[in-house]
Amino acid sequence: MAGFEDASLSLDDFLGGQVRLLQPKQGYRAGVDPVLLAAAVPAEPGARVLELGCGGGQALLCLAARIRDLRLTGVELQPDYADLARRNAAQNAVEMTVVEADLAALPVDLRQMQFDHVIANPPYYRAGAHSPAQDVGRQISLGGATELNLWLDTAARRLAHKGYLHMIQRADRLPEMLSACLGRLGSLEVLPLAARVGRDAELVILRARKGGRAGFKLHAPMILHEGVSHLRDGENYRAEIRAVLREAAALPWPG
Amino acid sequence: MAGFEDASLSLDDFLGGQVRLLQPKQGYRAGVDPVLLAAAVPAEPGARVLELGCGGGQALLCLAARIRDLRLTGVELQPDYADLARRNAAQNAVEMTVVEADLAALPVDLRQMQFDHVIANPPYYRAGAHSPAQDVGRQISLGGATELNLWLDTAARRLAHKGYLHMIQRADRLPEMLSACLGRLGSLEVLPLAARVGRDAELVILRARKGGRAGFKLHAPMILHEGVSHLRDGENYRAEIRAVLREAAALPWPG
Repeated sequence: MAGFEDASLSLDDFLGGQVRLLQPKQGYRAGVDPVLLAAAVPAEPGARVLELGCGGGQALLCLAARIRDLRLTGVELQPDYADLARRNAAQNAVEMTVVEADLAALPVDLRQMQFDHVIANPPYYRAGAHSPAQDVGRQISLGGATELNLWLDTAARRLAHKGYLHMIQRADRLPEMLSACLGRLGSLEVLPLAARVGRDAELVILRARKGGRAGFKLHAPMILHEGVSHLRDGENYRAEIRAVLREAAALPWPG
Repeated sequence: MAGFEDASLSLDDFLGGQVRLLQPKQGYRAGVDPVLLAAAVPAEPGARVLELGCGGGQALLCLAARIRDLRLTGVELQPDYADLARRNAAQNAVEMTVVEADLAALPVDLRQMQFDHVIANPPYYRAGAHSPAQDVGRQISLGGATELNLWLDTAARRLAHKGYLHMIQRADRLPEMLSACLGRLGSLEVLPLAARVGRDAELVILRARKGGRAGFKLHAPMILHEGVSHLRDGENYRAEIRAVLREAAALPWPG
């Protein structure tokens, strides 16, 4: 039977306790990334939202805490995590459909659905792989779909006209992400997330729109922490980031 | 006979007068962009440098003012500008070879040469075209080379192993630029240039390396002007930018 054993799970607070999530003590544990992702999504109440690779449901459930009446669907490859996402939805009294499936082979009923929003926080590390531009290019030129290519292609297919994709990912995969969007999604915007002022971006949130016609925008970085270096232990998130993480505020999107 | 008439030209100071350049009073006049481009290039004395689309030679001659003994080659499609580049080289007592050619059909002797550095400041506006991601993608998927694709392919072919490309371009063409680099150039780095703190990047400088294996880096933006808005007429460049523009300083590259 699928599922983590209870003893292997911890129950953790998100959004200042507005969301409580079971997470494996070992294995993938959500950090701030799915919370930031959910905070970037400008969904209307009642909107249809699909998460690709929903893990234990962190991003969807954080989104549900901020916006009411969403129709939530998560796709998750790993049975243990799909089961966990269902338990977490119940735990937070949120209706959410979790589909156990590979992105490359979505069930036919899901392939007939369209969504107003698709969100994704694809795994940051591929087994044994780093992917400098030349390797990715070789992969593409050999006709091989890169992993992010599959995620972005799936997102584009499932989006309704004018629907939005939001994806959070390591900044070093930006060339691969943007390349995969060409011809599939428009009105691309990149919000770099940098730990501190003057630092390179470690993460980016990509916003894109199905059928969008606006030019690409590279926004000023969103700075996560106060100060120029880590002077002491403990939190020192900037106020607007703290509001996102602790009070379920929306991430202030530039422009 | 090719060439601008003298009466149609002005003689303008660059780098605080270290470089004096003839420019057409009408038509393309260099702003700060070729100066910033030249300032980003970490060439060693004696290095072989090729500029694609060298116009009147602004970037190459600014580079020559900062680094000695460079072996400079410029390719320029328009005869008037090729002629102007030769006159500007002579005017500044710099040796520079200017080849009048289309990037898509470089002369065979140039196609047999390799360079330590390739630089380019491709035209920012294509005739009648804006290029949202979907149009570019359609162009690519139809097998049509986009314009920037040709520039980056030409650059990659002319670079020696471990040679560097630097390209300055509008930020909204970043998806197209990065996509064109995949499989051709590695160790990609993007330095966004923003007018002021908190603003979206208007321009980017792309650095890439032939045979480079490092991951992509999205650097913190280089801010050009002091303050958060334009309070008065006249210059208010930040000190490090002013040093680049007036004293031929190198652009401080992050990392």
